[in-house]
Amino acid sequence: MSELRKDPIIDRWVIVAAERGRRPTDFTPALDPPTGAFSPFAPGNEAKTPPEVFQIGRAPSEPSNSPGWRVRVVPNKFPALSNTGELDFRAHGMYDEMNGVGVHEVIIEHTNSEWDLALATSDESADVLNAYKARITALYEDPRLRYVVAFRNKGVAAGATIAHPHSQIIALPIIPRQVRERLEAAREHYQRKRRSIFSDMLRQEAQDGSRVVEESEHFWVLSPFAARFPFELQVFPKRHNHDFTAQSSEELRALGEVLVRALKRVKGALSNPAYNMMLHSTPNKRYAPGSEDDWKTIAQDFCWHIDILPRLTSVAGFEWGTGFYINPVAPEAATKYLRDVEV
Amino acid sequence: MSELRKDPIIDRWVIVAAERGRRPTDFTPALDPPTGAFSPFAPGNEAKTPPEVFQIGRAPSEPSNSPGWRVRVVPNKFPALSNTGELDFRAHGMYDEMNGVGVHEVIIEHTNSEWDLALATSDESADVLNAYKARITALYEDPRLRYVVAFRNKGVAAGATIAHPHSQIIALPIIPRQVRERLEAAREHYQRKRRSIFSDMLRQEAQDGSRVVEESEHFWVLSPFAARFPFELQVFPKRHNHDFTAQSSEELRALGEVLVRALKRVKGALSNPAYNMMLHSTPNKRYAPGSEDDWKTIAQDFCWHIDILPRLTSVAGFEWGTGFYINPVAPEAATKYLRDVEV
Repeated sequence: MSELRKDPIIDRWVIVAAERGRRPTDFTPALDPPTGAFSPFAPGNEAKTPPEVFQIGRAPSEPSNSPGWRVRVVPNKFPALSNTGELDFRAHGMYDEMNGVGVHEVIIEHTNSEWDLALATSDESADVLNAYKARITALYEDPRLRYVVAFRNKGVAAGATIAHPHSQIIALPIIPRQVRERLEAAREHYQRKRRSIFSDMLRQEAQDGSRVVEESEHFWVLSPFAARFPFELQVFPKRHNHDFTAQSSEELRALGEVLVRALKRVKGALSNPAYNMMLHSTPNKRYAPGSEDDWKTIAQDFCWHIDILPRLTSVAGFEWGTGFYINPVAPEAATKYLRDVEV
Repeated sequence: MSELRKDPIIDRWVIVAAERGRRPTDFTPALDPPTGAFSPFAPGNEAKTPPEVFQIGRAPSEPSNSPGWRVRVVPNKFPALSNTGELDFRAHGMYDEMNGVGVHEVIIEHTNSEWDLALATSDESADVLNAYKARITALYEDPRLRYVVAFRNKGVAAGATIAHPHSQIIALPIIPRQVRERLEAAREHYQRKRRSIFSDMLRQEAQDGSRVVEESEHFWVLSPFAARFPFELQVFPKRHNHDFTAQSSEELRALGEVLVRALKRVKGALSNPAYNMMLHSTPNKRYAPGSEDDWKTIAQDFCWHIDILPRLTSVAGFEWGTGFYINPVAPEAATKYLRDVEV
């Protein structure tokens, strides 16, 4: 089992997943995963993955782990965290550590290895988002799992190691410091002003307009004011909501269409770059009774959103040393380029 | 002039350096900078850089910006920050921004484009560290510059764009949130225990031994307990000191030898990977009078150190979305591999 270790100075945890057993010679420069090669995620190869935990498309009468699915969710074969055993918070001298309890799943988004989410039909993108919703909902049944993050890595520069289109879900036994800081800042704003900081921001962006890449009936696609990376995008719902899983099927279908257009803009403006996509939603409210956390006002103070980070620049010593980022493209200029792409 | 923008939710600043004027088509996949090609940093090409601000090696009687130097420091030709004008803190609706006031310099470490710090002589590595010390000392004369970071990017995966060996120095008008959090945590520990958290940690590491890559007369080279990246290293002085610039010439010479051996270990164990190296030292104590900051106990509570991050794994959606890292190699295993390299 992997181990969670806390940095001795600040409250930052690291997953030491040493049972992956990598030796120095295993770290060779990454290449783009080959397309057209054997895909462990393709229909017919269901036995190459751990047994599925969810699928969309196959009739209930058909056997599990057989073809017929459109989207299929399986445990990660090389999970960073595992869903057995106790958390076992413990000291190691002055250090803190705990067992790597959690869940790590793969959402296989399509049967075709060369399918591209940026070119998806409305049905296809809705399937992917419905799988996100179903898995987050299911994982939050377990009160040990305090925070679930869903993300998508596309291209080797974004950390993808398998070409077959997929997302991943990781459920963590603690709320990461970075997430907690944002949640706490949002709560503090709400307590002071009785307004969500996200609503304040969206109102300003709507009035200003210079960072609005797209406004649709239900969503905003923005180039964030303090974007860390060139051509970074954020997608927000117009209906303020802290919980992604509370979105209706109709809303998820519309969101899928908005996401596909956003990815098409990124692809078109930047000749198909690698990117990371992350869903930020509420932590698990189920574990809270008597805990140190108070999410009483989260429905008012926080709003779920999706980040899209094209990977165009390297993270270097300055960024690692300070947490400061240098963005060589003004978000307002990025907005113009992205708006101009035909979608 | 570039602009500093604050994230609306948390206290994280971004440098928007848009005058670099990069368009979408300027972002092509990075390649390793060619060696043997023309180097703007080579002797004879001094006019290709802005005029030098410091050099080691040339006699005072020789003209500036001519050959004869061993190490040469010049302003970055494409600086992220510029050293003119006022900070001009201002609001932009609910957002905060300020002018990109600061300094961005390049330390040209050697005359030979193909020189390697991992193979440097004691004289050569001492020259580089003496340049770090001289520039940090000089920049802290300016009370507007609150934090100086010195760093080195080696290889394209680490963000290097010029092959000629160099470090960089960036002086910032604010203390980055990430740095501030560590300083505050160290201060809090000291206030509670009257001991530096760094001394506590080094004592435990010395007793434990399983993460000690090298102990020399004056320095520790450690594999951090909660390392974010495989084969990450930290170098600490044995003599507790918050301020890198207070190191004597003898100490810097010994540090150079330790650093060279550490880089040789990384190079030998991992077949010459890209890496980032960062120096963490004290913020500028000169600006403090009447400010919100209290560095009264920093000499007791903080200790300067150097981080070396080999770039072997990609940063992906999970890391960007949570600030959590997955390290596939236990620091204790990394220690063994690194110790075994002949230096």
